[in-house]
Amino acid sequence: MMILEGSLMNVITAEIYSGRLGIEDELIEFVEQTGTASPLTLENIEKFPPPFILPGLVDGHIHIESSMLTPTRFGQIAVSHGTTSVISDPHEIANVIGIPGLRFMIEDGRNSPINVYYTAPSCVPATDFETSGGSVNSNAIERLLKIEDIVALGEMMNYPGVVNGDKEILAKIDEAKKAGKPIDGHAPGLTGPDLCKYVKAGITTDHECSTMDEAVEKSRLGMKIQVRQGSAARNLPDLLGIYGTHGVMTVSDDRGPCEMLEGHMDSHLKLLLKNGIPFTDAIRSMTINPCEHYGIGSGALVPGRLADIVVLDDLLEFKVNSVYVRGKRMFADCTLPPVEPRKLDYTPKAPSFSLEDLMIKSEIEGARYKVRVMEVADGRITTGKGEGILETRDGHLIPNIDEDILPLVVIDRYEGKRIGKGFVRGFGIRNGALCSSIAHDSHNIICVGSDYKQMERVVKRVSRTGGIGAVSGIMLAFLPLPEAGLMSTEHVNDVAEDLTWVKDIVKLSGCSLESPVITLSFLSLLVIPELKLSDRGLFDSGSFNFVDVIMEKVE
Amino acid sequence: MMILEGSLMNVITAEIYSGRLGIEDELIEFVEQTGTASPLTLENIEKFPPPFILPGLVDGHIHIESSMLTPTRFGQIAVSHGTTSVISDPHEIANVIGIPGLRFMIEDGRNSPINVYYTAPSCVPATDFETSGGSVNSNAIERLLKIEDIVALGEMMNYPGVVNGDKEILAKIDEAKKAGKPIDGHAPGLTGPDLCKYVKAGITTDHECSTMDEAVEKSRLGMKIQVRQGSAARNLPDLLGIYGTHGVMTVSDDRGPCEMLEGHMDSHLKLLLKNGIPFTDAIRSMTINPCEHYGIGSGALVPGRLADIVVLDDLLEFKVNSVYVRGKRMFADCTLPPVEPRKLDYTPKAPSFSLEDLMIKSEIEGARYKVRVMEVADGRITTGKGEGILETRDGHLIPNIDEDILPLVVIDRYEGKRIGKGFVRGFGIRNGALCSSIAHDSHNIICVGSDYKQMERVVKRVSRTGGIGAVSGIMLAFLPLPEAGLMSTEHVNDVAEDLTWVKDIVKLSGCSLESPVITLSFLSLLVIPELKLSDRGLFDSGSFNFVDVIMEKVE
Repeated sequence: MMILEGSLMNVITAEIYSGRLGIEDELIEFVEQTGTASPLTLENIEKFPPPFILPGLVDGHIHIESSMLTPTRFGQIAVSHGTTSVISDPHEIANVIGIPGLRFMIEDGRNSPINVYYTAPSCVPATDFETSGGSVNSNAIERLLKIEDIVALGEMMNYPGVVNGDKEILAKIDEAKKAGKPIDGHAPGLTGPDLCKYVKAGITTDHECSTMDEAVEKSRLGMKIQVRQGSAARNLPDLLGIYGTHGVMTVSDDRGPCEMLEGHMDSHLKLLLKNGIPFTDAIRSMTINPCEHYGIGSGALVPGRLADIVVLDDLLEFKVNSVYVRGKRMFADCTLPPVEPRKLDYTPKAPSFSLEDLMIKSEIEGARYKVRVMEVADGRITTGKGEGILETRDGHLIPNIDEDILPLVVIDRYEGKRIGKGFVRGFGIRNGALCSSIAHDSHNIICVGSDYKQMERVVKRVSRTGGIGAVSGIMLAFLPLPEAGLMSTEHVNDVAEDLTWVKDIVKLSGCSLESPVITLSFLSLLVIPELKLSDRGLFDSGSFNFVDVIMEKVE
Repeated sequence: MMILEGSLMNVITAEIYSGRLGIEDELIEFVEQTGTASPLTLENIEKFPPPFILPGLVDGHIHIESSMLTPTRFGQIAVSHGTTSVISDPHEIANVIGIPGLRFMIEDGRNSPINVYYTAPSCVPATDFETSGGSVNSNAIERLLKIEDIVALGEMMNYPGVVNGDKEILAKIDEAKKAGKPIDGHAPGLTGPDLCKYVKAGITTDHECSTMDEAVEKSRLGMKIQVRQGSAARNLPDLLGIYGTHGVMTVSDDRGPCEMLEGHMDSHLKLLLKNGIPFTDAIRSMTINPCEHYGIGSGALVPGRLADIVVLDDLLEFKVNSVYVRGKRMFADCTLPPVEPRKLDYTPKAPSFSLEDLMIKSEIEGARYKVRVMEVADGRITTGKGEGILETRDGHLIPNIDEDILPLVVIDRYEGKRIGKGFVRGFGIRNGALCSSIAHDSHNIICVGSDYKQMERVVKRVSRTGGIGAVSGIMLAFLPLPEAGLMSTEHVNDVAEDLTWVKDIVKLSGCSLESPVITLSFLSLLVIPELKLSDRGLFDSGSFNFVDVIMEKVE
């Protein structure tokens, strides 16, 4: 038996005391309190000597694909930050290659240094308004929910389907109820009677709240709020008031490779404490709360639970001494654990297209048109409905760089047939283009740029292996993502370095966004308000249907 | 759709606000908040007008048999006090007739005005040291746990078996884990390494705490404390400090028919408030906490949950206006709902015995012996290990009424072969006898009295139909319990009246105990410290083996 001794943090009773615990195989064998207990406040914690022993941190909702790392590679870096479990919704890869993709994630996840639990993706394809490479119907959901690694039905993004009683959607929900597994929600802005219908269907979490009003309404209806602090959407500062209520979790939703190098749940914890959230509420949101909700056998230092444990040399700095996952020491001496990543080696089809295919045709030379423009901004994945005036030249609408109205295209990489075209304001690219095979949720190829020539160049590179590329003049940077066009099996350092090159080129091209790659990747996510683009056209989430790019001819 | 309107109590967010809710079929369809929310404190509640609408009350641990009423009759009175669900461990009837008894409880429970959920009795027979009429092995447990009405594995009283890794016990625990259902505990006084082993096995509740030290140690190890306020053991006043910790429940464990007339969970709620427990902590312990723990779909006023709802005209008096169970109005206008009780019509065997069979033989006329004496007192079901001196007359040890050392016998009513004999101090009966076919957990016939003649008389009456009888001189009172010798299908009023007659006679006989019937019924519960009596002899729970009644001859 292995014995750990130190200042034990009890997240159940919200106490700290000196003690020892024994680990036998995967489990905590015993816990022995040797000193007097104090309430688990920062003030009291400071009176206790290191090492601090606490339950491993848990991310209650993340898409591992967002790290651009395969599950083994993700776990390798996450464990160094004290993460011992994630609940991951693998819907990105499911949209690209369906069930074989899920099998890959589960198998690779089982070899990850951390516990990788999954949810069964509930909305693949995300909508009928886009072309995707995989689908997961209710029969598949039934089979998936029998797998032990799968702990819930994944985020139910098709909230109109729930509210209107779509049969296939309800069948998926029924499968989760039969399996006794919870159902995750995703319902930005849903309120009143429609929200009641959504909750009544059995959906018990939501990670899309962006205001306290929204979070309070949902929690009053019994939903557990997953406060999201992602690389794209960062709602935590706006939702501090919800901490302390029933079952609140802090989740990442998405976290890119550069951010994974900096931290993971430890970063969220530090941010919460900096914002004055009581230590108990903060730590519970990433230990016992997600574990209880998803029925995961860890989250607290008590006998019989999985020995998922973090030992800290310093609490406020979250200086990790060592991390145990299922009783095995997975991180110590600042050394990442070795991993053996599997390869999927799925190469997306290279769609063939001509330069003209990227353009919106317009025949009257010099004519000006009022067009719909997607408005983007930092820190949110929703877009605004904007408008702009564009001119016709050489038979097509041309970008207006001074007004920052740039072409955006989404190229179907499954059937190789369709190209969706629109315009976006907010990137600020003056000379260059950015392209990615990460484009939620169908992960077609998406590209924005200052001119069609540069866009064509970078799209061709991305089409070859999948990945993210940026051009600006003669410069090109590229991060290959050969695993379904979403992930790499390379070390996080290498992935982050390539991505940093890409970001630098985007910046050089004039882009003013903080996270242009992420912002770009969400412009095709049709279920998020308000204007989005799929390979089939410009989409209005309010009317839940396509709209024309060109509104009218301007005199 | 039915609409209720009033001051809604939200036990999840701990708030009160004006609003309406809709009931459709069994479920809450919608909840609409119409006024500003205030924190759910007594002070705030007083500012809101009646009616108050709150989730129905839930008893997280009770043995329905303790009410001496069948499940339909129990539900008929319980619903009038605002109870909408109970989690009942039917181990009393299981000890008497095994699986057919459980089937009876489940079938009758489904016709009860309230939701009757069960646990699969884990320890039937309770020990190998007594004769019982039924048994439930791990194969039976596997089948029972597949029944929807059965929500957990029942209280694991055989804690030595768990600690020492008894194979059959561990097999039962494994069945519960496989079924994904929680395992109830019962481990009075268990502490330190043995408690760790018990917890490690997967046991997550305990209702046997009698001190704060015990409750705190168990809750630090992750157990949810069920604060017991029963007719026999009343631990609530000693455990007030545990309210507010994770998942605390208030439970009855046992509640007799007279007490059921007075109240149920509403009585516990009033007692908690009287003792200064915050309203939120008190109400959560009997709504959301048990519902979440046992996976029951009620416990809060949110869409999609069972419409188990109490409407109050007055909160502090808990004046019930109406009660809804699964959307049906089950109580209103102070009128108990009609029920159609099933009959089991099981008559226990009438053991045949002679007067001498009740006595402890001793041949030397006039000789004095030091004997072990069970010590009983009000408000607890444990006994003390006492001693006393008794004289021999007419070939047997005779009671010492002045020293209150009275004979106690346990007569096997299954095989009709064995009679256990001992002595007890604390009843104070000077002229009479009290006898019951309720005698935990095997429910043989137990009798205490001032002399063997009166004991014989009342035992014979009880043997005929099962029930509880008392004699004192020429007076006899009797409550028939024809359903397995444990329960009646009569109206609670009639059962309580008969029982009151019995209690009056016991009092007349000189008994000074507050609840002599209950105290008597627990004297055969071998798993509870310290000295107990089975049909096979006097039992020491410390050594977990039999001990002699006679210690030594006194000069």
